[in-house]
Amino acid sequence: LHKDDCTMVIFGGTGDLARRKLMPALYNMQLEDKLPDKFSVIGVGRKEHNTAGYRELLSAAVAEFSTQTWDPDAWHSFATRIQYISSDVEDPASFQVIKTFIQDHTNQKEAVHNYLYYLAVGPHLFLPIAKNFSGPMSEGELEGWRRIMIEKPFGQDLATARDLNKAFCASFSDRNIYRVDHYLGKEMLQNIMVVRFVNTVFEPLWNKDYIDNVQITVAENDGIGIRGDYYDRTGAMRDMVQSHLLQMLAVTAMEPLRSIDEERIVSSKVNLIRALTPWPGDKIDTTMVLGQYRGYLEEKDVATDSSTETYSALKLAVNTPRWQGVPFYLRTGKKLEEKQARVTIQFKEPLSNDVNLILNTLSLEKNRLLNLLVIKVQPQEGLAFQFNIKKPGSAIEIVPAEMDFCQPCAFLINSPEAYECLIEDAIQGDKSRFSSWNEIESSWTLIDELFKSYKAGSGKLNLYEPASWGPRQADSILSGGKVRWWS
Amino acid sequence: LHKDDCTMVIFGGTGDLARRKLMPALYNMQLEDKLPDKFSVIGVGRKEHNTAGYRELLSAAVAEFSTQTWDPDAWHSFATRIQYISSDVEDPASFQVIKTFIQDHTNQKEAVHNYLYYLAVGPHLFLPIAKNFSGPMSEGELEGWRRIMIEKPFGQDLATARDLNKAFCASFSDRNIYRVDHYLGKEMLQNIMVVRFVNTVFEPLWNKDYIDNVQITVAENDGIGIRGDYYDRTGAMRDMVQSHLLQMLAVTAMEPLRSIDEERIVSSKVNLIRALTPWPGDKIDTTMVLGQYRGYLEEKDVATDSSTETYSALKLAVNTPRWQGVPFYLRTGKKLEEKQARVTIQFKEPLSNDVNLILNTLSLEKNRLLNLLVIKVQPQEGLAFQFNIKKPGSAIEIVPAEMDFCQPCAFLINSPEAYECLIEDAIQGDKSRFSSWNEIESSWTLIDELFKSYKAGSGKLNLYEPASWGPRQADSILSGGKVRWWS
Repeated sequence: LHKDDCTMVIFGGTGDLARRKLMPALYNMQLEDKLPDKFSVIGVGRKEHNTAGYRELLSAAVAEFSTQTWDPDAWHSFATRIQYISSDVEDPASFQVIKTFIQDHTNQKEAVHNYLYYLAVGPHLFLPIAKNFSGPMSEGELEGWRRIMIEKPFGQDLATARDLNKAFCASFSDRNIYRVDHYLGKEMLQNIMVVRFVNTVFEPLWNKDYIDNVQITVAENDGIGIRGDYYDRTGAMRDMVQSHLLQMLAVTAMEPLRSIDEERIVSSKVNLIRALTPWPGDKIDTTMVLGQYRGYLEEKDVATDSSTETYSALKLAVNTPRWQGVPFYLRTGKKLEEKQARVTIQFKEPLSNDVNLILNTLSLEKNRLLNLLVIKVQPQEGLAFQFNIKKPGSAIEIVPAEMDFCQPCAFLINSPEAYECLIEDAIQGDKSRFSSWNEIESSWTLIDELFKSYKAGSGKLNLYEPASWGPRQADSILSGGKVRWWS
Repeated sequence: LHKDDCTMVIFGGTGDLARRKLMPALYNMQLEDKLPDKFSVIGVGRKEHNTAGYRELLSAAVAEFSTQTWDPDAWHSFATRIQYISSDVEDPASFQVIKTFIQDHTNQKEAVHNYLYYLAVGPHLFLPIAKNFSGPMSEGELEGWRRIMIEKPFGQDLATARDLNKAFCASFSDRNIYRVDHYLGKEMLQNIMVVRFVNTVFEPLWNKDYIDNVQITVAENDGIGIRGDYYDRTGAMRDMVQSHLLQMLAVTAMEPLRSIDEERIVSSKVNLIRALTPWPGDKIDTTMVLGQYRGYLEEKDVATDSSTETYSALKLAVNTPRWQGVPFYLRTGKKLEEKQARVTIQFKEPLSNDVNLILNTLSLEKNRLLNLLVIKVQPQEGLAFQFNIKKPGSAIEIVPAEMDFCQPCAFLINSPEAYECLIEDAIQGDKSRFSSWNEIESSWTLIDELFKSYKAGSGKLNLYEPASWGPRQADSILSGGKVRWWS
């Protein structure tokens, strides 16, 4: 694979994301020889550091957060690639330091002229920074390419997302804007496409005829921690549903591709997101439930009368011929019982008339006959398949059984971290694992519509106990009482 | 469940089957409280033993061969139920001893009047014994029921099977004749029906549209041991294919049942066996391969010029709408590489045109895309499912993965031994797990036809090395070279 030499400029170079995710990912890439030969990293932050101090700070972070073992030689090789620039990115004068640096650098012979920017800062800084990209920082002015990676959430609603996009498009063409949703870099999310399409046992069954419902859960057991300022302005719908959960839904439900290329993957996902609506015929109360964990109002940097949701559950319809009548249940929340991200496919009960006759003679609990395919995205990675067998012994009694596939156990390696895949893709110019503007636009359209209906309806915020599975009202959106949340 | 009090009379009471299987099964049933309150066992054998000596002989056998732990109290309770009668069953005068015993017994008040006979003798003794059943031993003459369990093989071909059946029918009505194929008592064989019919992920796919081929393997690593006299007159086709392999095929391929009762199971299996033919259009050489292991001619009690097959491989067609064009490959043999009995379902490659387009862009080896469902009957019991996933890493590379279900691990108990289930069924009068006369008749019809064609063709017997997977000629019956034997 082609690896373009480049310089990566990380805005927010001393922040949480850089220390916990980006630098450990780059260090792993160094270990695995995935970095271009000529590759350097410039951390940009408000804090005063010299490069030596910055490298020291990162060495501690990488040792703590890298999923790979600590290799002093590899660290040393990587550390020599790192520099630091102190700059207040909201201040155009201060921003000039970076421009000058790039200008000088680009004038040097033998220098690398390609720049990959990474906005690892709070989303309130996206717009101020975007407005400062010009001259040598932007595309076309000087030699080499300019690409920009932007963390989610991309906007707070459709209007702000449009503003933001306009600002970036002033300095970059769309093909150089990489909107990050790091779930798209997760191994098992990419695997959903393969599991669906390249297995005869699943491919013909992946539709309304055989699937009863689909559940997508992204549960966190942590609270909001020190991110109260950001979180209280954002909430579960904007922080998680608009990005991670809709992307999980899209790869699970999108139409088959005619080839695996960026354009087709993106357009298949866009079509899917555009086909999403609240469950038709339901009132908003039985298609959307918001919650807040008890104690949230006492968290640091949270308004004492905040109505920000820390939990959200939705029942969505996918209005395509493949999915008529199949509810897609989404839920996500903070301070839930267990940390887990997974997609659960609940198959219908056996359809054959003959089989139904057998089942009647056995007077079984119907609910026990379902088949489940669970795609585990994190923290475990793998698949679990629940099916039915005969209980050992002479009578015919049917009981559920489970088979499991553990991805890291099978390959004896950890999957590469999502951020490794995404940085590698950006260096190579592959956008298939990034959110396109069309996806962002259509997902905000849905989120805005949901909020509008919710506020016009009861607008109720349901309290729930920390370490529970969220407000009990979330059960009310499950069809007909025959369905339960799987976890 | 109803447990009829009865006396079980085991012909061949000191033989291999009684010592290794029947008595250990009865002892297990004693432990699990599955025996009727009034239940006794009479061993009948040519050897001179008193009852004390016979019990001692069995105690050693049960301690060695029972799958349960040794419990002196349970053994003592069971031993008091056992008696021994010495009799040469080929001699009508000697047989009279048994008749007199039953006559006397039946005249006693409070005595048990039901008799369950078990023919655990060599098949050459079936006909002589059958002719001696009369008077108090047979049905209808005196109080109580008379049932008879007969080990396989039931006959040596269609003609002898008919003679044998006629002889038994002279003393028993068909509903009291229990033709044993102990594979039908095996847990995983019964489980095939449940796995097929009661899982949405398998039921709609169990046909020619989604299945490429089915393979049924019963491999033994032992040779013929001390059974040369029996085996040399019988061979793999009559010893294994006519019974175990055709029964495995029948439960795998039969049409869905409208209810799980004896009559429907049996008639569905009969219809299936009647629909079997050699692969149409093929010469016999590419639909049937017989082999003999090197060294067989030196085995004890084997003719030095024997042409008995110790290995057989078949390619059969199931001429029902469900299975048009799907080959069923059967193979069984002695002295093969590994002891295993399993059914392997090889699914077709993904069918969707769209998916095929993807696969072409990935230039995959097509053969790697199959899905396999392996039903493990013995020595392991369980299921394995091979499917395709994405190899971890950034490129889209598709690799096979496996999920496993281990039946005894999941239930933390050993499945009951096949003979326990079958004796329990016979005591309760349930014939659903026995071979009906119609099944025997139609399976012999097929075996006779195959032998006839084989002799009219090359009639070749292929030598193979002990501890191999049999003669390499067996590969020639696999369609088109795209298929391989799974083991």
